[in-house]
Amino acid sequence: MAKLLALSLSLCFLLFSNSFALREQSQQNECQLERLDALEPDNRIESEGGLIETWNPNNRQFRCAGVALSRVTLQRNALRRPYYSNAPQEIYIQQGNGYFGVVFPGCPETFEEPQESEQRERRRYRDSHQKVNRFREGDIIAVPTGNVLWMYNDQDTPVIAISLTDTGSSNNQLDQIPRRFYLAGNQEQEFLRYQREQGGKQEQENDGNNIFSGFKRDFLEDALNVNRHIVDRLQGRNEDEEKGAIVKVKGGLSIITPPERQRGSRQEEDEDEKEERQPSRRRDESQKGESRRHGDNGLEETVCTAKLRVNIGSSPSPDIYNPQAGRINTVTSLDLPVLRWLKLSAEHGSLRKNALIVPHYNRNANSVIYALKGRARLQVVNCNGNTVFDGELEAGRALTVPQNYAVAAKSLSERFTYVAFKTNDRDGIARLAGTSSVINDLPLDVVAATFNLQRNEARQLKSNNPFKLLVPPRESEKRASA
Amino acid sequence: MAKLLALSLSLCFLLFSNSFALREQSQQNECQLERLDALEPDNRIESEGGLIETWNPNNRQFRCAGVALSRVTLQRNALRRPYYSNAPQEIYIQQGNGYFGVVFPGCPETFEEPQESEQRERRRYRDSHQKVNRFREGDIIAVPTGNVLWMYNDQDTPVIAISLTDTGSSNNQLDQIPRRFYLAGNQEQEFLRYQREQGGKQEQENDGNNIFSGFKRDFLEDALNVNRHIVDRLQGRNEDEEKGAIVKVKGGLSIITPPERQRGSRQEEDEDEKEERQPSRRRDESQKGESRRHGDNGLEETVCTAKLRVNIGSSPSPDIYNPQAGRINTVTSLDLPVLRWLKLSAEHGSLRKNALIVPHYNRNANSVIYALKGRARLQVVNCNGNTVFDGELEAGRALTVPQNYAVAAKSLSERFTYVAFKTNDRDGIARLAGTSSVINDLPLDVVAATFNLQRNEARQLKSNNPFKLLVPPRESEKRASA
Amino acid sequence: MAKLLALSLSLCFLLFSNSFALREQSQQNECQLERLDALEPDNRIESEGGLIETWNPNNRQFRCAGVALSRVTLQRNALRRPYYSNAPQEIYIQQGNGYFGVVFPGCPETFEEPQESEQRERRRYRDSHQKVNRFREGDIIAVPTGNVLWMYNDQDTPVIAISLTDTGSSNNQLDQIPRRFYLAGNQEQEFLRYQREQGGKQEQENDGNNIFSGFKRDFLEDALNVNRHIVDRLQGRNEDEEKGAIVKVKGGLSIITPPERQRGSRQEEDEDEKEERQPSRRRDESQKGESRRHGDNGLEETVCTAKLRVNIGSSPSPDIYNPQAGRINTVTSLDLPVLRWLKLSAEHGSLRKNALIVPHYNRNANSVIYALKGRARLQVVNCNGNTVFDGELEAGRALTVPQNYAVAAKSLSERFTYVAFKTNDRDGIARLAGTSSVINDLPLDVVAATFNLQRNEARQLKSNNPFKLLVPPRESEKRASA
Repeated sequence: MAKLLALSLSLCFLLFSNSFALREQSQQNECQLERLDALEPDNRIESEGGLIETWNPNNRQFRCAGVALSRVTLQRNALRRPYYSNAPQEIYIQQGNGYFGVVFPGCPETFEEPQESEQRERRRYRDSHQKVNRFREGDIIAVPTGNVLWMYNDQDTPVIAISLTDTGSSNNQLDQIPRRFYLAGNQEQEFLRYQREQGGKQEQENDGNNIFSGFKRDFLEDALNVNRHIVDRLQGRNEDEEKGAIVKVKGGLSIITPPERQRGSRQEEDEDEKEERQPSRRRDESQKGESRRHGDNGLEETVCTAKLRVNIGSSPSPDIYNPQAGRINTVTSLDLPVLRWLKLSAEHGSLRKNALIVPHYNRNANSVIYALKGRARLQVVNCNGNTVFDGELEAGRALTVPQNYAVAAKSLSERFTYVAFKTNDRDGIARLAGTSSVINDLPLDVVAATFNLQRNEARQLKSNNPFKLLVPPRESEKRASA
Repeated sequence: MAKLLALSLSLCFLLFSNSFALREQSQQNECQLERLDALEPDNRIESEGGLIETWNPNNRQFRCAGVALSRVTLQRNALRRPYYSNAPQEIYIQQGNGYFGVVFPGCPETFEEPQESEQRERRRYRDSHQKVNRFREGDIIAVPTGNVLWMYNDQDTPVIAISLTDTGSSNNQLDQIPRRFYLAGNQEQEFLRYQREQGGKQEQENDGNNIFSGFKRDFLEDALNVNRHIVDRLQGRNEDEEKGAIVKVKGGLSIITPPERQRGSRQEEDEDEKEERQPSRRRDESQKGESRRHGDNGLEETVCTAKLRVNIGSSPSPDIYNPQAGRINTVTSLDLPVLRWLKLSAEHGSLRKNALIVPHYNRNANSVIYALKGRARLQVVNCNGNTVFDGELEAGRALTVPQNYAVAAKSLSERFTYVAFKTNDRDGIARLAGTSSVINDLPLDVVAATFNLQRNEARQLKSNNPFKLLVPPRESEKRASA
Repeated sequence: MAKLLALSLSLCFLLFSNSFALREQSQQNECQLERLDALEPDNRIESEGGLIETWNPNNRQFRCAGVALSRVTLQRNALRRPYYSNAPQEIYIQQGNGYFGVVFPGCPETFEEPQESEQRERRRYRDSHQKVNRFREGDIIAVPTGNVLWMYNDQDTPVIAISLTDTGSSNNQLDQIPRRFYLAGNQEQEFLRYQREQGGKQEQENDGNNIFSGFKRDFLEDALNVNRHIVDRLQGRNEDEEKGAIVKVKGGLSIITPPERQRGSRQEEDEDEKEERQPSRRRDESQKGESRRHGDNGLEETVCTAKLRVNIGSSPSPDIYNPQAGRINTVTSLDLPVLRWLKLSAEHGSLRKNALIVPHYNRNANSVIYALKGRARLQVVNCNGNTVFDGELEAGRALTVPQNYAVAAKSLSERFTYVAFKTNDRDGIARLAGTSSVINDLPLDVVAATFNLQRNEARQLKSNNPFKLLVPPRESEKRASA
């Protein structure tokens, strides 16, 4: 009994005490937004193996939301060099497949090269490292504050990843500036130029811009016990700045991962915990399979084995579904427990032409909507009843919807898809129309008196729309679009 | 065993992970207050059915405390139209009785009209909605961030309600400006004029000022599947702005609620969970009874059935009581668990003439004291030993006492009553005089050395006042006031 | 079963709901630090019994970290008069031994004078007070927000205590200014002059500067039921300002504590819970022993019996130890549960000459390093790869290392010792070199591609340094220093 209590307590510890993430409030008046914009990235940094695009985090709507947005493109065999951030990140894989790793300091290196056969005994070094994860299109990846992340594209299709960095998180004890700490290279961190605009001092000239660059050589030689040549490489000395944060790996990476299964279906995902296979070392070329392994129940889910990704782009069981209107899928901390620390969640939606998302608001979060495909008309309304946005959101643009602001959307394309990043780990949508909406939850007479309606009109308001969040196009529109 | 653990875990989840509320800090130097004032409301907005008065939230003592204060008066048959806020609210009912509802999006509509008898079968629509609660004088009502609230006065006595909005709560992810999002009407939200003073942009002219007003008509027609007339009403088009946030309901509201019991006593409160009665639909005229129903134990207490009100104005068992001095009653998250999310608590006090509240301070909260009846002399001292307030607090005025500032009070009326709103969900008072005070908790020799006293003087300091927080008037004063 | 659940729930309550402490973020751009400095205290206030030195909290590196630092020296028989703060404190005892008390309002007075023998019956007053704790060199003491603290030196060796006040804690609901609320005396609180510099208003002249000074005499006479003379003493009237916050106790304090055991060893610490002895009243002269008593298991550990100190200066079982290099000891909320509320932790390190602390960063905390003995060379690097500090840290100076900034150190003395205060309750170090470092956690090929190295060079990087955080001096250096 006592043991049980102790256990239950320690579980509580595991779950709650580690690193609670709560959000900071925006600065005074930062959220008095009379106009929002659907924004494209405004900066572009080419690298050897790809491209990093950023949105200006000093834009008022991002400052209000306390977030920074960026988009990374990895070409085939491109490696995003390891880095960490001063704030939690949520990454959506818009396109492509590949590998990623998130380093948890202090956790064991659980991926090990197999014992060599005896004739090769002379080779003494056997590599081991922390878990390597496979990602694919439609994945959400959660990266905690200060944990090193790397990504790699082993496929022909370029990987496109959208990343939200939640600088307003209380996990960030620095100021609101998004910071990338690179472990390697000579490139500037992608948000640095915006700091400069903000009046930050001119950077001093320096060999290398990574976290090792600022140490003196002798410190590193002693700390790593390696020769000067290797230290120079670490510090990014003499490296071409153009090489950048994304490097090309000649011949591709060879990574220890479990063998993949050859299957065409994506449902494999739910099954891949059931089998265990011996790890092997091989070159990954163009497989589509999955290769994660993790403990899934509450007891095994420690920091070291925390699951960091979940697919929301193509789930066979979406949370909201109407064949005529579309589908919406959400990921919260109930789906991906690590989001409880990050205090982030996400939503993926896909709308058919002329289908509508009814007016609604986020009770407890700011939201950044990024359009993946097609275009839609969105309207956003503030507390004064003013339209702060009425326009199109097209693929590649992002729109911030602050907490409690009302928003509605109508798809203008055959298939409008989007991902929304939200600054809270639990969904808190309140709908303003349709079944189970806020209006529906009010007594009939309150509705009538509130809106100055006859009781039969109030009844229509409460009952005419039988749909919930998604409304299919009207018959006339369907024909028109057919 | 495993199940038990899982259950216990999920309970932890329920309790802690949902929406933790913590407070933001005040801006730099905001709390260097050398003078506090007992403030009256400085703005007054008349509505058809009542009155909203507000205190300027940009006043420095409210900015330091991170709160906004307002007072609402509802005449008979007046409905405060539904609205939600970007921050949690704590409402004290100074006078009157009535109904209120707080909408929890996603929760079921548990109040249903009964099955009609067969002869009336033609009537197809049966109304259902979320729980309706009865409130009465002395109640504290807790309203979470982003949840829609409505209130209704079905009695002859005007309802007067004092509301504290905790804009400094971390549940508010916008800036510190208090915002009301109205579901209906053409009135400005009550705190808008202060935003303008702060340099916010001039509002654009608009038909309607509610959350529906900013949407285009066709969006709403599609989303609600109703005709243009109803949409116009929703948007508050052509509605007289004078009608306002509080409307008069002709003939009164008809609300589904359990039948009330005819009892004179107020103790019924504690018993009304014991009985179940069949819901019925009726016009509420002037009953005084109670009509809530809710689950009370930890397992049933989910978000959907969370209890939102508790009476502190007239409890038969106050927390502190001295017949000669008065009584003090507190409500914390132990009394009303929903306050754990809101991170708010409250205190109600009633003092006899010349009775004293000894010098004390709030360890972990800011406090806003609102005088309900009579007047008292208060003194407040800051960390430099300066008197930042020494004056009278009379009925209808509010005084902010920042965290850790010391405060004492003496009633100047036969009955001085007040309510104090506190920005933490647990009580954290430290008393500076009387039994069990901070001085009493120190060793005798420490007291003597600290205050430069003889040991027998230190003994007097520790033991002369046998009372705790409330000190009755001295005999001489009693006679004088008799 | 139900009981068990209820119990487990209430434990959760105990642990989590009481007063969660999270940190505020720094103001806009506050952490764009291009240069850090190893700072000495810049103000010095002499008192009758000792000395308070402070660092300017408006210094940018402290503003970024959201902390204030001070150093207190108590001479023999000196009492630091009781005070409380608007933010949690972590105190490290650099030198000396003595007594301290932290008052928990509402908790019982558990230290009682014994029943007098019958012949002395005339003496009616028996003193009782809250727990008195013994501290010694190397202790960390945790003081929650708003709790009164006093300290006393009963030994010949002066007590030197370093205190970090975490004004960025969300337990502080006021602004970032560190405030001391003194219960007694006529001295200014030690951080007041920095407020003035910040443009705070000129202080009004006042008799006394303590929390009682601002109340009118008649209020205090009534509240305490004592005569005017005692009230004058309370208010610090006519007291010499020079007397100050630390007073000399003639003849020493007489405090109720359990009798001490005469032992030379310091291991006694771990045993002193096992025995119970009858409390006695005596003059403490120059004992070295221990005299705390507290409940230690989860069930008994309530607020009232929370353990507030732990020794990290001379633990026989350090967390990291290498006889050639040195030792590091940490205290987190796992060692001292009260730190979970304070959201603070600490680290104590001791390095041999030329030993190295490898480059590493704090994932989730700001850190303030205070050098206790000797000197070391430190380097700190920001996200742009710039060296923001490369210099010596010598005994008595403090250096701030912001979250995620990389830092390394090399001892220049035979014995360099330091204490680091961290603004999170759990350790979150990530090492950039050595076994189990971030580089080691990456796959070999990722290391090679990241740093543009041959695979065998990458192997060296991963495996050449067999040490973890501490690296012993090279052989050549050892000889040189021998």
